[in-house]
Amino acid sequence: MYKLINSVDSCVDEALYGLVRASEGLSLLKGHRVVIRSDLDNLRGKVALLSGGGSGHEPAHGGYVGAGMLSAAVAGGVFASPPPASILAAILCLHNAGAAGVLLIVKNYTGDRLNFGLAAEQARNHGITVDMVIVADDCAFDRPSKAGRRGLCGTVLIHKLAGALAEEGCPLDQIVLKMTEVLKRIGTLGVGLSPCSVPGCLPSFDLPPGDMELGLGIHGEPGIKRSKVASADEVVKLMIDQMTNPDSQSHLPLKSDSVVVCVNNLGALSCLEMGVVTRAAIICLENQGVVVARVMSGSFMTSLEMAGVSLTLVRANQETLRLFDARTTALAWPHLSNVCVTGCRYISDPPAMSTRPQDDSYSEGPLSHVMRKTLERVCFTLLEKQEELNSLDRAAGDGDCGNTHAQAARAIQEWLQDHRVPGCPGKLLSVLAGLVQEKMGGSSGALYSLFLTAAAGHVTEEQSSAAAWASAIHAGTEAMRRCGASACVGVLFICLWAIMCLLTKRATLGAEGTCNLTAQAGRASYIAAERLTLPDPGAVAVAATLRAVLEVLEGQK
Amino acid sequence: MYKLINSVDSCVDEALYGLVRASEGLSLLKGHRVVIRSDLDNLRGKVALLSGGGSGHEPAHGGYVGAGMLSAAVAGGVFASPPPASILAAILCLHNAGAAGVLLIVKNYTGDRLNFGLAAEQARNHGITVDMVIVADDCAFDRPSKAGRRGLCGTVLIHKLAGALAEEGCPLDQIVLKMTEVLKRIGTLGVGLSPCSVPGCLPSFDLPPGDMELGLGIHGEPGIKRSKVASADEVVKLMIDQMTNPDSQSHLPLKSDSVVVCVNNLGALSCLEMGVVTRAAIICLENQGVVVARVMSGSFMTSLEMAGVSLTLVRANQETLRLFDARTTALAWPHLSNVCVTGCRYISDPPAMSTRPQDDSYSEGPLSHVMRKTLERVCFTLLEKQEELNSLDRAAGDGDCGNTHAQAARAIQEWLQDHRVPGCPGKLLSVLAGLVQEKMGGSSGALYSLFLTAAAGHVTEEQSSAAAWASAIHAGTEAMRRCGASACVGVLFICLWAIMCLLTKRATLGAEGTCNLTAQAGRASYIAAERLTLPDPGAVAVAATLRAVLEVLEGQK
Repeated sequence: MYKLINSVDSCVDEALYGLVRASEGLSLLKGHRVVIRSDLDNLRGKVALLSGGGSGHEPAHGGYVGAGMLSAAVAGGVFASPPPASILAAILCLHNAGAAGVLLIVKNYTGDRLNFGLAAEQARNHGITVDMVIVADDCAFDRPSKAGRRGLCGTVLIHKLAGALAEEGCPLDQIVLKMTEVLKRIGTLGVGLSPCSVPGCLPSFDLPPGDMELGLGIHGEPGIKRSKVASADEVVKLMIDQMTNPDSQSHLPLKSDSVVVCVNNLGALSCLEMGVVTRAAIICLENQGVVVARVMSGSFMTSLEMAGVSLTLVRANQETLRLFDARTTALAWPHLSNVCVTGCRYISDPPAMSTRPQDDSYSEGPLSHVMRKTLERVCFTLLEKQEELNSLDRAAGDGDCGNTHAQAARAIQEWLQDHRVPGCPGKLLSVLAGLVQEKMGGSSGALYSLFLTAAAGHVTEEQSSAAAWASAIHAGTEAMRRCGASACVGVLFICLWAIMCLLTKRATLGAEGTCNLTAQAGRASYIAAERLTLPDPGAVAVAATLRAVLEVLEGQK
Repeated sequence: MYKLINSVDSCVDEALYGLVRASEGLSLLKGHRVVIRSDLDNLRGKVALLSGGGSGHEPAHGGYVGAGMLSAAVAGGVFASPPPASILAAILCLHNAGAAGVLLIVKNYTGDRLNFGLAAEQARNHGITVDMVIVADDCAFDRPSKAGRRGLCGTVLIHKLAGALAEEGCPLDQIVLKMTEVLKRIGTLGVGLSPCSVPGCLPSFDLPPGDMELGLGIHGEPGIKRSKVASADEVVKLMIDQMTNPDSQSHLPLKSDSVVVCVNNLGALSCLEMGVVTRAAIICLENQGVVVARVMSGSFMTSLEMAGVSLTLVRANQETLRLFDARTTALAWPHLSNVCVTGCRYISDPPAMSTRPQDDSYSEGPLSHVMRKTLERVCFTLLEKQEELNSLDRAAGDGDCGNTHAQAARAIQEWLQDHRVPGCPGKLLSVLAGLVQEKMGGSSGALYSLFLTAAAGHVTEEQSSAAAWASAIHAGTEAMRRCGASACVGVLFICLWAIMCLLTKRATLGAEGTCNLTAQAGRASYIAAERLTLPDPGAVAVAATLRAVLEVLEGQK
């Protein structure tokens, strides 16, 4: 497994350095892997909170150091418990700053319990008031081992709730009492689609692509069930069912309660997937009659680069929400809403918008007939040239230039069957702009539509002189230029010249004059110029369109 | 590529739903993929900001909607430009809310320029004041193609700076002017260690494991250079050198300027690696005499699940920093420091702490001799049993129980050579606690140290009666119980019983009485009880230790 680090030995210290330098108000304790608040004076008379554990779970725990959350965090090596000497150093620092006792928040893993417990004993020998809460929120095992339920992402919620209490000036014994009570209302379950790997080591376990493992720990410890990757909705339902199954000794009793939901990226799940899972969790809970009071979604307690997600649920009362909503300066705590998610309006009505004029909003005029004939010829020509355009496009682009133009042609043909052609040329250009935008799609559709939309305002039934057409075409090409479509501007200058010719009765147009045009937008623009020995298919399509226009108009003279 | 989604077709809409439901103050525009502020009233008289583009770059752009950043964001399909009709709908909404003009912030990709440009034209036809800034911050290509430099993570910084200006009431033309100027001071470069894959598609490109590609786009478009994955420091130096190389047409001129640095996770890089890269970026810039004014590190403009990172640098003046620091409610904008990173103190001194009493801080006493003899025998026994303990441990644990006990024994032997043995038994227990904690390591070291630390306070030179030893041992076992080490408590009750026997001169100890003890902590605790037919190696070690103690003490009688 290749990682962007300098060395296996230095990565933990370097990551802590990165965190602390990027954040105001954090310091590293010299000689230790301890992130501590710089403003220790603000701890005087308040309970200080210390947490920590193995590294590889970033932003836990250093990212949660700040006013309203942790006072300090101690890191061990990757997935290894921190040494008691560093834990003790942090406790002494907080004590020396005048803290009214120190609360250790520890995930339920043997190493962490022992090392934090040892440091606590040593601190007590120094006469410091220390207490400890053990977070054991894992809902994976129906019958947990003697080591008990593992400590997972629920720890971050305890940081937040205990941190808010400490900030309020709540005494140590009260915080311990309240957290002991909250801990009974927290449950977490994870699912992994890939293993993680400790720097310098092989992946923590084998998981064939397409399989997922339910209930694994944050160090890649075994879960409870393997299956094929199911849909996000199914996976979330499976997780919540397991978490709340009364037959399991480690379940979270949940009825029509109010909950805080934490959707935690275990590492490498894309943010797109995180959004999908967040939706699934909200809907699944609401479908069960649960009130979703708050949602947090992001990377809170990771397992290196594991592709997976964990869900944490906290049954919440008014006090829980007050503490959850309280202000914190901790870097990794997100901006969050403080209103109840369930029942909150989240759909707005769009503005009334007509992309095309209604058939009854315009009348025909003297130009309607010739414009209909012109459009019919253009459509016929584009359909005739479909394969030729595709073939030209295959040399430089994705080979669908003929198809997209044929789509536009068929859309215009269909429209002509059902609609009158407005006497106002500008109105017709607007209709065509809407049609190609909607039915042609892609860059070509947008380009044509852009040109037609910008041009439309300049020609009306009254104003359709050569000068009016010239300024319409100028407006169209200007709009394209603003959007960076400069090659097409070249094509359209030919168009401009052609229509000027037409309107001044000097009609000639050399289609192959487009051969030396280079595509400057769209996929083909990334092709080296020397590979373009054929004319640009888009330019050929424009030329063919214009020739068709010319032929009809010439025939009218 | 397996993803946690429900379907390729629904994933974009579902992710937007997840974002909007999880956030206060956001709405979805019905029938469109548009995330818009719910508090549109607050836009009255201010410039509204609209951005967007293909999905797959989350949290861009929906996560940046909020007071002080975007007013709305339009999403296309994954890596596909959004349709002009949705862009127009968003513009109309913002206009109808009373906004004093709408600014479109668009990444320099053909599709986005065309579709946003087209919607802008249509909005102008509706009489709306619209302007557009194109972000083209890619520093990859020395000679950019005719399509220009690509728009990358710098877009997020433009959201922030323009958003702060709009919030201040700055008029549209001024914002455009200022952003046009800022855009000359922004550069971005990415590096990928893995491809990403659009849902339902194969990976966007092939990259052999161990290779990296420099300068790729956020859709997996080609970069400029492939090489073996180098160290984080080397990769960051390579990136900054390329970004600031005056020979490149797309370089960012940088001398002893002040910069804002954005370290952007392209998707699947672990948070640990992100910390390492953040450190490397700060140090590399400072080494070149650049003042690092602000650092943001996280997922801001992702490329689905690509394992990689991009660096964005903004040359910053006082106004840039004021706008950067301004308040925003946007969900995806992190808590950030508003003090200059360079020059900020980030190391604290640890408290004075002595883990062991100095040799001159105690004197020998009547018990010193027997305690030395006892320790020597214990060490000899543990070294003698090293292989036996390892062999027992191989059946259930990681096979190093003998080795860790041998480490402790050798550490104690070394200490005995150089030190007097204190007359106070409690002081000796403290010394031993420090030695095993420091030299033995692991769960065993912590367990012994925990027991010895908690026990130490209860026996002194004056108080070393059977009752004192009993309360010391009780304190030790209680400390272990609090840390969840209940099996060891069993072992230590044997110990307690043994020492009681010893002190009351009724000394017998059956070592094999430990055979029915089950490990309840450490790695072996996860092994099913039925597989444990051999005695627990830790228990055997404790028994052997106690037998050695007994033998010496019996010999003393």
